Amino acid sequence: MSQDFKKIGIIGKYANTEIGSQLCALSDYLLARGCEVHIDQGTVDALRSDFPNANNISREDMGQLCDLIIVVGGDGTLLNAARSLTRFNVPLVGINLGHLGFLTDIPWDHYQDKLDEIFDGQYTVEDRMLLQANIIRDGTSISESIAFNDVIVHKWEEARMLEFSTTINGKFVNVQRSDGIIVSTPTGSTAYALSGGGPVLNPALKAILLVPICPHTLTQRPLVVDSESVIEITISEEGHARAQVTCDGQINLGVTAGDKIRVSQFNGKVTLLHPQDYNYYQILRTKLHWGIRL
Amino acid sequence: MSQDFKKIGIIGKYANTEIGSQLCALSDYLLARGCEVHIDQGTVDALRSDFPNANNISREDMGQLCDLIIVVGGDGTLLNAARSLTRFNVPLVGINLGHLGFLTDIPWDHYQDKLDEIFDGQYTVEDRMLLQANIIRDGTSISESIAFNDVIVHKWEEARMLEFSTTINGKFVNVQRSDGIIVSTPTGSTAYALSGGGPVLNPALKAILLVPICPHTLTQRPLVVDSESVIEITISEEGHARAQVTCDGQINLGVTAGDKIRVSQFNGKVTLLHPQDYNYYQILRTKLHWGIRL
Amino acid sequence: MSQDFKKIGIIGKYANTEIGSQLCALSDYLLARGCEVHIDQGTVDALRSDFPNANNISREDMGQLCDLIIVVGGDGTLLNAARSLTRFNVPLVGINLGHLGFLTDIPWDHYQDKLDEIFDGQYTVEDRMLLQANIIRDGTSISESIAFNDVIVHKWEEARMLEFSTTINGKFVNVQRSDGIIVSTPTGSTAYALSGGGPVLNPALKAILLVPICPHTLTQRPLVVDSESVIEITISEEGHARAQVTCDGQINLGVTAGDKIRVSQFNGKVTLLHPQDYNYYQILRTKLHWGIRL
Amino acid sequence: MSQDFKKIGIIGKYANTEIGSQLCALSDYLLARGCEVHIDQGTVDALRSDFPNANNISREDMGQLCDLIIVVGGDGTLLNAARSLTRFNVPLVGINLGHLGFLTDIPWDHYQDKLDEIFDGQYTVEDRMLLQANIIRDGTSISESIAFNDVIVHKWEEARMLEFSTTINGKFVNVQRSDGIIVSTPTGSTAYALSGGGPVLNPALKAILLVPICPHTLTQRPLVVDSESVIEITISEEGHARAQVTCDGQINLGVTAGDKIRVSQFNGKVTLLHPQDYNYYQILRTKLHWGIRL
Repeated sequence: MSQDFKKIGIIGKYANTEIGSQLCALSDYLLARGCEVHIDQGTVDALRSDFPNANNISREDMGQLCDLIIVVGGDGTLLNAARSLTRFNVPLVGINLGHLGFLTDIPWDHYQDKLDEIFDGQYTVEDRMLLQANIIRDGTSISESIAFNDVIVHKWEEARMLEFSTTINGKFVNVQRSDGIIVSTPTGSTAYALSGGGPVLNPALKAILLVPICPHTLTQRPLVVDSESVIEITISEEGHARAQVTCDGQINLGVTAGDKIRVSQFNGKVTLLHPQDYNYYQILRTKLHWGIRL
Repeated sequence: MSQDFKKIGIIGKYANTEIGSQLCALSDYLLARGCEVHIDQGTVDALRSDFPNANNISREDMGQLCDLIIVVGGDGTLLNAARSLTRFNVPLVGINLGHLGFLTDIPWDHYQDKLDEIFDGQYTVEDRMLLQANIIRDGTSISESIAFNDVIVHKWEEARMLEFSTTINGKFVNVQRSDGIIVSTPTGSTAYALSGGGPVLNPALKAILLVPICPHTLTQRPLVVDSESVIEITISEEGHARAQVTCDGQINLGVTAGDKIRVSQFNGKVTLLHPQDYNYYQILRTKLHWGIRL
Repeated sequence: MSQDFKKIGIIGKYANTEIGSQLCALSDYLLARGCEVHIDQGTVDALRSDFPNANNISREDMGQLCDLIIVVGGDGTLLNAARSLTRFNVPLVGINLGHLGFLTDIPWDHYQDKLDEIFDGQYTVEDRMLLQANIIRDGTSISESIAFNDVIVHKWEEARMLEFSTTINGKFVNVQRSDGIIVSTPTGSTAYALSGGGPVLNPALKAILLVPICPHTLTQRPLVVDSESVIEITISEEGHARAQVTCDGQINLGVTAGDKIRVSQFNGKVTLLHPQDYNYYQILRTKLHWGIRL
Repeated sequence: MSQDFKKIGIIGKYANTEIGSQLCALSDYLLARGCEVHIDQGTVDALRSDFPNANNISREDMGQLCDLIIVVGGDGTLLNAARSLTRFNVPLVGINLGHLGFLTDIPWDHYQDKLDEIFDGQYTVEDRMLLQANIIRDGTSISESIAFNDVIVHKWEEARMLEFSTTINGKFVNVQRSDGIIVSTPTGSTAYALSGGGPVLNPALKAILLVPICPHTLTQRPLVVDSESVIEITISEEGHARAQVTCDGQINLGVTAGDKIRVSQFNGKVTLLHPQDYNYYQILRTKLHWGIRL
C-alpha cells in the first residue's frame, strides 16, 4: 500500500449522536494536511446533523475510493468497520474515544501526533485474519457471515445445555454438552474467549482458537489449531436445546437441531496501521492490569 | 525419507530391568521381516542381561546408522530419545507398554499389525518442533539444553514466589510474581502446561505456549506466540527467591538472581511416524475422558 | 424420624414411559416386606398404563401420608421431588436407573440389598439446605421458587453480556458484566456451578456459593458465604440485556431490567437417607474420574 | 473484651529498619491519648536504634499485659503477630504502610482518625479461625505449627510431581499427583490459594479450603469442607519426590515419604478489630480491581 494517504475515510462510533464535534475536528485536521475527507453516511445519519466539511459516502464507496480509513469509537465500531470493508484492502487506523481498546489503540487526546507520524510514514502495518461462518442445513449453506473476533455457537432462550459434535478437517474431535463454544481469531482471543477461560493469542499467530463455554465435562479445554483448519460444529438432534450463532457479538444467525456450523479462515484480511511506538504487550498490560515493576 | 526401512534401532524404557522379553520379541519380529536390528546400549545395560539377537550400539551410532528407531516405553522415554537424536533426522515410532501415551501411540498389544503397516508404507509422517533453552549470565550462555515438551522456570527450595520479567522478541511483556512459568511446544501443551491451566495446541501448530504457574496477578493468562518468537525470562535480583530451569522434567539447569533464560525454537525437529489410523483427537478424547456419544 | 418405615411413596423418572416394569418390581419388593405402597399420580400418568399393585396418590398426599419416599430416576427427578416435598419433612431415598448420580446414590442393580439395609435401620441421615429465590419489582415480590441445586440469573435471548450489581447482607459487593451468575447450595456445587469453574462444597457445609458465568473482569472469582447470607442481584437498567432466572434448570422466572433477585436459605430442608457404606467422596471420585491408586 | 483499651502493644514490620519515625509518631499519639505503650522487642532490635517513648517488651509479655495490639506493616507482619499471640486472646488492629492489605485494613494516612474511632468504641469485632498442622511419622507427631492463612504441602527441590493421598474425617478422598496442595482458612483464601485457582471464602464462614496445585488430573477441583473437618495428607512412599510443609509462607516443616500431615482447626482464634466503615467486599473490590460502576 502507498504511504501517500490522500483520500481519507472517517467512520464514527455506531449510532452515536454526540461525537459530531470530535469528527469535525478530525476532519479539519485532515483537510489542513491537504487530504480529501469522506465520511461514512451511517455515521452522519446517526449524528442527526449536517457534516459540512466532508463528503458523505456509503461504506461501499469509501472502500473503493479511500486509501486510509480512520475509525473513531471503540473496538466494537472497528469490528463492524473491518467486516464491512474486507473486500477493499484499505488500511484502518483506530482512535478510541473512551477506554483504550485492543483495536482502537490511539487515544483521542493524542490523535494529531499519532496521525502525523502515520502520514509521515512512521507506522507499522499489521495484517489480521478473519473467520467465515456458514450455516449448513441439509447440505446447503443457508446463511453466512464473517467475523473479526469470534463466531459463537450458544444456547438460546433455553436453560438446558447444548449438545453438539465438533470435527476439525473432517476428523471427529468430540461431543460436548455445554453452554456453547467460541471459535475465535487471535484478535478475538482477548474478547469473549478470554471470559470463557481461553488463552491470549498473539495477533501475529496464524491460528484459530476454540473455547468451550461452561462445559459439562471438566476436562474440556481451550484448543488452538492452525488457521487453515476447517471446523464443523453440528447441533445434536437429540439435545432438544435451541441454539444461535453470533458473530462478533453483532450478527445473529439462526440455527436448529441438525444444522452444521462451518467455520474457517475468511479469504481476506484486515490491515491495521499502528503508530511506531505501538506495542501489543503494552496494551495487554494496561487492559489486564499486569505488573510492570521489577 | 525412504519407506524402505532396513536398519532399525530399538530404545527401551529408561532404567527398566523387566522389558527384556518384550524387546526380544520385537527384535525377533524385525529380524523375521529381514531387518538389521540395533539396540540402544543404555537399554541393554539396564536390562542387566545379554541381548543376543541384536547389535548393541551407542545412541550416537544408532542415529547415524539406522533409518527407523522404535521407542518402547512411555512418553518420557520418547522425550529422552527424541532429544538425543535431533541431529540425525531419523524417524521415530513410539510403542507404549502401559497406558496410551500422547507420543507413544501404538499399544504393545498391536505392535506387529501397526509395524506391518508402517513397513508396508502405510503411515503418516509428522514433524514436530523442539525448544532450545540457554542460561545467560553476564551476557554469556553458561548452559543450554533442548526440550521437546517444555522449559520450566520454577522456584526451587523456596516457599516464596519467584519474581521475573519476560520479553518476547525484545518487547517487554510484564513482570510477574508466581511459582514460575512453563514455556512449551505444542507437544508439551498436553503435559505439565495442561496442569498449569494452559490450552491444548494441535501439534501441527507452529507456536510456543507460555503458562504462568500460580501467578499472583489473577489476570495473567496463558499466552500463545509464533514459533519464531524469542522469549527471554530474567530472574529478578530483588526477589530473593531461588530458581531452577527444568527441561522435559528430565534435565535441570541451575540459575541465580539476575540470570536470563532465553528460549527459542531449536534448529532441528523430531519426525514421528504414525500408523494410518492415527488420530490426534482420538488420543485426546481417550486421555481426557471426552464424550463421544451423540 | 422413625426407623419403622411402613408407608412408602414411589416417584418415578419424570415423563418416562418405560420404567413400568422396574417400578412394579420395586413395588412388589416393598409389598413383600409388608409395606403400604403409594405411587405418584404423575409417574403413573406418564407410564400410560395401570399400576395395579400400589395406590395412586398426589404428590401432596404422598408428603402427608408416607414416612419414606423412594425416587427412581436421575438427579433431576430427585431435585423435582425434593422441591415438591419440602413442607412434609419425609426422608428421601434415591435410586438411579442409569449413571450414578450425586443424589440418586443407590444403583438399580443393588436396590434390594440397599433398601434391606435401610429397612433394618442401617442407614445414615443427611439434611441438606435449599435456596429460596424471589423476584422483586418495585419493592414487591412478584414471583418465587425454591431450588435444591441452584438459582441461575442469566442472559436470555441475547448475545450481549448482562450487567448487574450484587449485595450480600445489604453490603455492596460489585457490579459485574458477565453471562450471569450461579447462586448454588453445596448440593448444587457439583452441578452447573462446577461447569462454571466453581469449587466443590461438601454437602454438610452451611454455605452458599456464587459463581460468575464468563465474567468480563478476569478477577471475578467464585465466592462462598455463610448459609444465613441474603444475596440480592439487581439487573442494570442500562445494560439493555434481557435476563431470566432458572431454578434447578427446571423452573424459569422472568425478569426485566431493574428487577432484584433475592436469594436466601429456604426455611425447610431435604432429608436424604443413605446406605451405610455411602461415601460422598467415593461418588466424587467416580463422577470426576479421580485417582485411587497409591 | 473491654472497650477500655489502656495498655497498647505495638508490633512493627518484620526486620524493618526504616519505620522508626512512624512507630514513634504512633507511640506519641497513643501516649497523648493516655495509653501505656509497649513495643515489641524484636521490632526495636530491627530498628537498630533506641525507642525512648515506649517500654520494650517480649511478644509473650505483650500478650499477657496488653489489651490491644497494633500491628504496623503488611499482611505478612500481621500473620506473624497473630500466630505468636493466639494464646492470649488480645484483639489486633492492622495498619498498613504500603498497599492496602486484606488484614491490615487501616491505611497509615488515616490511622489517627481510625484509632480515635476504635478508642471511642466505634468498631466491629471479628473472630477468625486458624489451622494447626502436625507432621506425623510412625504414628507420632514430630513437629507442628499453627497457620493463619494456609498450610501448604509442596514438592521441594524436585521437578517431579508429588504423589499423596488425602482423607477427610478418616474418609478416603483421593490420590493425587500434583505440585502439592494448599489447605487454607477463609482468611487464606485470598492469599496463595487464590493464585492456585481457589474461590474466595468470606472470613465469617466456618470452613477449610483445599486447593490442589497444578494437579495432573484435570478434574481435581478446589474443595470446601466444614471447619471441624480433620484433613490428613500422606506422602506416597513410591512417588520418590521430596516435599515440604510451609505455614503462612513463613514456617517450614520437613517431611519425607510416608509422613502424614494432619491439618485441623486450631483451638484458638484471632480477634481483629475494624473501624466502623470496614467492608470486606470493599477490600476485595480494591485488591481485585472489581467494577463498581452501574
